[in-house]
Amino acid sequence: MTDDASYKALENLGAAPLWRFYGNLFPAEPRSRAVPHSWSWQDLRPHLLHFSRTLSLDEAERRVLMLVNPGLIDPPATVNTLYAGLQIILPGETAQAHRHTSNAFRFILEGTGAWTTVNGERVHMAPGDLLLTPGWHWHDHTHQGDAPMIWLDALDYPLVNALEAGFYEQYPQRLQPVTRPDDAGSRQFLHGRLTPAWLTPDGPSSPVTRYTWEETARALDAVADTAEGSDVDGIVLEYTNPWTGGPVMPTIGCRVQRLRPGFHGAGRRHTASTIFNVVRGEGATVVDGVRLDWSEHDTFAVPGWASYRHLNTSASQDAVLFSYSDEPVMRSLGLYRTEASDPGA
Amino acid sequence: MTDDASYKALENLGAAPLWRFYGNLFPAEPRSRAVPHSWSWQDLRPHLLHFSRTLSLDEAERRVLMLVNPGLIDPPATVNTLYAGLQIILPGETAQAHRHTSNAFRFILEGTGAWTTVNGERVHMAPGDLLLTPGWHWHDHTHQGDAPMIWLDALDYPLVNALEAGFYEQYPQRLQPVTRPDDAGSRQFLHGRLTPAWLTPDGPSSPVTRYTWEETARALDAVADTAEGSDVDGIVLEYTNPWTGGPVMPTIGCRVQRLRPGFHGAGRRHTASTIFNVVRGEGATVVDGVRLDWSEHDTFAVPGWASYRHLNTSASQDAVLFSYSDEPVMRSLGLYRTEASDPGA
Amino acid sequence: MTDDASYKALENLGAAPLWRFYGNLFPAEPRSRAVPHSWSWQDLRPHLLHFSRTLSLDEAERRVLMLVNPGLIDPPATVNTLYAGLQIILPGETAQAHRHTSNAFRFILEGTGAWTTVNGERVHMAPGDLLLTPGWHWHDHTHQGDAPMIWLDALDYPLVNALEAGFYEQYPQRLQPVTRPDDAGSRQFLHGRLTPAWLTPDGPSSPVTRYTWEETARALDAVADTAEGSDVDGIVLEYTNPWTGGPVMPTIGCRVQRLRPGFHGAGRRHTASTIFNVVRGEGATVVDGVRLDWSEHDTFAVPGWASYRHLNTSASQDAVLFSYSDEPVMRSLGLYRTEASDPGA
Amino acid sequence: MTDDASYKALENLGAAPLWRFYGNLFPAEPRSRAVPHSWSWQDLRPHLLHFSRTLSLDEAERRVLMLVNPGLIDPPATVNTLYAGLQIILPGETAQAHRHTSNAFRFILEGTGAWTTVNGERVHMAPGDLLLTPGWHWHDHTHQGDAPMIWLDALDYPLVNALEAGFYEQYPQRLQPVTRPDDAGSRQFLHGRLTPAWLTPDGPSSPVTRYTWEETARALDAVADTAEGSDVDGIVLEYTNPWTGGPVMPTIGCRVQRLRPGFHGAGRRHTASTIFNVVRGEGATVVDGVRLDWSEHDTFAVPGWASYRHLNTSASQDAVLFSYSDEPVMRSLGLYRTEASDPGA
Repeated sequence: MTDDASYKALENLGAAPLWRFYGNLFPAEPRSRAVPHSWSWQDLRPHLLHFSRTLSLDEAERRVLMLVNPGLIDPPATVNTLYAGLQIILPGETAQAHRHTSNAFRFILEGTGAWTTVNGERVHMAPGDLLLTPGWHWHDHTHQGDAPMIWLDALDYPLVNALEAGFYEQYPQRLQPVTRPDDAGSRQFLHGRLTPAWLTPDGPSSPVTRYTWEETARALDAVADTAEGSDVDGIVLEYTNPWTGGPVMPTIGCRVQRLRPGFHGAGRRHTASTIFNVVRGEGATVVDGVRLDWSEHDTFAVPGWASYRHLNTSASQDAVLFSYSDEPVMRSLGLYRTEASDPGA
Repeated sequence: MTDDASYKALENLGAAPLWRFYGNLFPAEPRSRAVPHSWSWQDLRPHLLHFSRTLSLDEAERRVLMLVNPGLIDPPATVNTLYAGLQIILPGETAQAHRHTSNAFRFILEGTGAWTTVNGERVHMAPGDLLLTPGWHWHDHTHQGDAPMIWLDALDYPLVNALEAGFYEQYPQRLQPVTRPDDAGSRQFLHGRLTPAWLTPDGPSSPVTRYTWEETARALDAVADTAEGSDVDGIVLEYTNPWTGGPVMPTIGCRVQRLRPGFHGAGRRHTASTIFNVVRGEGATVVDGVRLDWSEHDTFAVPGWASYRHLNTSASQDAVLFSYSDEPVMRSLGLYRTEASDPGA
Repeated sequence: MTDDASYKALENLGAAPLWRFYGNLFPAEPRSRAVPHSWSWQDLRPHLLHFSRTLSLDEAERRVLMLVNPGLIDPPATVNTLYAGLQIILPGETAQAHRHTSNAFRFILEGTGAWTTVNGERVHMAPGDLLLTPGWHWHDHTHQGDAPMIWLDALDYPLVNALEAGFYEQYPQRLQPVTRPDDAGSRQFLHGRLTPAWLTPDGPSSPVTRYTWEETARALDAVADTAEGSDVDGIVLEYTNPWTGGPVMPTIGCRVQRLRPGFHGAGRRHTASTIFNVVRGEGATVVDGVRLDWSEHDTFAVPGWASYRHLNTSASQDAVLFSYSDEPVMRSLGLYRTEASDPGA
Repeated sequence: MTDDASYKALENLGAAPLWRFYGNLFPAEPRSRAVPHSWSWQDLRPHLLHFSRTLSLDEAERRVLMLVNPGLIDPPATVNTLYAGLQIILPGETAQAHRHTSNAFRFILEGTGAWTTVNGERVHMAPGDLLLTPGWHWHDHTHQGDAPMIWLDALDYPLVNALEAGFYEQYPQRLQPVTRPDDAGSRQFLHGRLTPAWLTPDGPSSPVTRYTWEETARALDAVADTAEGSDVDGIVLEYTNPWTGGPVMPTIGCRVQRLRPGFHGAGRRHTASTIFNVVRGEGATVVDGVRLDWSEHDTFAVPGWASYRHLNTSASQDAVLFSYSDEPVMRSLGLYRTEASDPGA
């Protein structure tokens, strides 16, 4: 038998020589398919408003512009494991109840008067609020305000689909019945450190349905005059699951950080992939030599193992960033790694 | 050899017949040496003030009236594993820095203008605040207000001494140096659910040095109109360690609960021992047939496995109780047990 | 009001001045009431045999000689939190089924042909076997061999009683029915590292009902020619709960250790209290200046925070010690502390 | 602006309408790209031997035939997250030392006299042994036996690469130095339930470098006459990490199972993907209507959420299967789901 004959036979037997694939399968270090990229709120908002006029929520189960990373076109994703989109809903509209194993959250950008009903609880929205929809929770939206409501939509479906673990189900009616007091999850756990002693955890995710911006702003203010926090990230707070002290969902960690005027962060990289949304202020993040300038409500992506550095370009105003990443995944699976690293530029 | 000769020989050999001790060692159910008991704030406060005039803090390392359970005189304790005392400190005074393996906390009853310095951090006091001093943390007190400062002092020394694990050390100076921003622990963890991402746990206890009453009151208010909570305990919130979601210290769990006007709790008992302090309101707790009436700042003890029922005797005012227990110990060691049980009366 | 009048009034109010008790409540370091002590197998065995002839198991629920520490006479205990006794049962006898919240185990010294039935499973005994009876498991004994059966009986009742968490119940019949295959717990978990995937934990304790000496000896032999292990304890192996990798029961940790010929251990102390039983060999343990010489089947006590050093006095034979301690309690409650320390002598 | 103009503009802005992708991103249930498939030992072994003659280990870093699932050609994988290959090494050969973040193991099929050196410890191989190489552990191979050595090579690189977390490094010399006693990890933890008390965990994976077949066979024999175990999987044992009781590595769980003669398993499916290798016996596994017949050393793949049923087609002989899966990943991330399900056929 010649090598060629053997190679041919192996192909038919469903086998292949490792030595011909080796370098591709075992790279010296990760090189994400995602690229550093930003999405402009000013540019995208008009299109959202356009489709809110031309496309009904009966046609589109959800009216969302996906923020597609140029390196992750098909299937579409924002970073390797996570997705970001901009969703709009109009006064008087409702969005169909459904559930999926993907974990999701909303981070509110504009508008008031809407709520998401999550497993029977109405959860209201205001700018800066973080609303959780953990995996397999029924959720539908209703808007009774008087102006469009826009939020950042976040999901881990790229991860869940890569792991081939996605399930999806529509609720038999358009809206689920309300069975709990409004915003109960948020109010019962107003402070994660004062937890209702008559409850017990009912899953791996946080029971706080809504982390209001009011509370988040108070937490940021409370540490305003203490040490600078991290030299990489400034004052950076992790939203936590009050039952465990860990991340809000097993696959997604959420943070908010304040960069003081003139902040020039240290460079770093880690294996987690991160998506940022600008709460307020102006600045730039340098990622692997690419400078991403940002201002209010812009979204930008820092791929895993890309080096990054945050800059607050204002000499007088704080900048505040909201972000989410797959760091909990990397830690659970023993794959988290981080080191100081200069992004250049 | 006769039995008697054998019994005598055994005594000399350091052995004893189990069959002569059996019933005492294996009781059918626990019967605490502690008894249901209450301590009157109105009665005790004058004595505190008296000794604040006649006894200096150089003579007494701490000026504290121990609340001694009639069943636990020697060594003195309030319930089986825990201690409560009333401590007073005058304007201009300082109390010597020391540390001990016993876990401790202060629950403030009266006064402002004082602080405890805990491992280099000044922690300020106001009525209703809960200040932690976890085991082996240096702590000293300073009072610069203009009226006496009184708090409930809590320690687990009865447990630690029963386990023969107590260590104690005096600081070489009267006061330790301040090395951290004032109230940093409290402000960094204002919300347990938003935790500083640049910190990591440095021990088994909560890093929240001060749980202010302001925050506690907000948490209670936030659940005011939702379900009644527990039929035994009303709206009951557990103070938690933000790193773990568990109790604030490994041996002591702290709670605050609101009993709505006219609340008549269900009867229950559990193996944990509990000490209560009345934040506001008037009512009674029936314990194993003994009725303990209480009003503001009174302290009362519910021994382990004693049946109890809480009553708010006001038809118009809430009652609010602060409490602490050894439930974390019982749970860690697999000894926690609870059941519905009528205290009678 | 004078001080004296105030002291008197306080007594009636159930309060006491901390400043008069301070030093006793906060010792500089632990000083166990237990003393270093040993119990001779050669001396005690005849008395066991004596009472096996003069006392029936109908009179004594269990026929056990308690090994009472001279410092812990009432209530009787062997070290602060733990108890050891020597139990004997004769061919043809049975011992009444009961259960208690105290965790217990048997370490077999002499005889074959008996079994303990634990929650419906017959667990057989042979010298060197460790048989667990975790808290609240029904257990009764039956002996069908042809010579007396003697074992070391271990319980945590001093701890459970100090925590006022002891419950006890007699089974309505003398013996419980057998509902599981013989020694199933032991055989299903023959290797803790190969666990039955169709089972799940049903409590905080190990499901291994019997750790046979045969398996223990194999484990000791397997590390015979590798490094010496600990300079304090030689080759020391911890019996573990295969579901957690932790101690076999939440309150008691069990170990076996081999001291090579001529072993002269480093001195150490820790807050855990320990009871040893000699499996084979001859040697001595120096505890706080007291030399305890030991040989086969002797039992000896090392109180918490006492300094100790192990010696194998044979130049040619290994010594093997079995031991158990409350280290899991100290660790769970954040009270474990250890340091190098010379016991003198 | 028309819809078309808006769609075109969005494309340039890196955004896309979710409503055009919806169904693909949120499937009703997982449908693995992998297909049920088996690989024949009898067919593949001659090709392994062929390349052992024509390809040196200087040319191929490792001489391995990858078992490529027909649904997962590029990049090649055996099931969605895991890889299996057949590796051969000849007497006198060595394989270059390297390390990678992918977790790996070897399951030995044929030969003796070789060892893998893992972080300084020589780990020897014999048929049926499971040898771990947790992520980022240096490893190289040496064969000094007198016949070819063949093993099943397992890696989680499909998962690690999908998560973009792969690192790889070559050791500067061909072989690393030996710094620990031979097979120390295996011998120190011969029983997971008797663990060396002088060691502490140094990572998330099992310290047992080698789970010998001798020990595995003893564990299987020990439960031979007890209950049948699972109606789906027969007597099925999980290899565990003795420090935690959990899976051997954070991304891969390993099991061995015995199907008694004539075993006809119940049907089931779960979100984990599994690869099987036949230790001995003959039978078939029906997967989503496809019957995979198997005999000794064959490998077969059961994709996630595929229904399966195991059959032992012999009326007199046991069948024994070794398997590994990504169940630990699914459980850590909250994505594990299972249900009874008939595979048909």
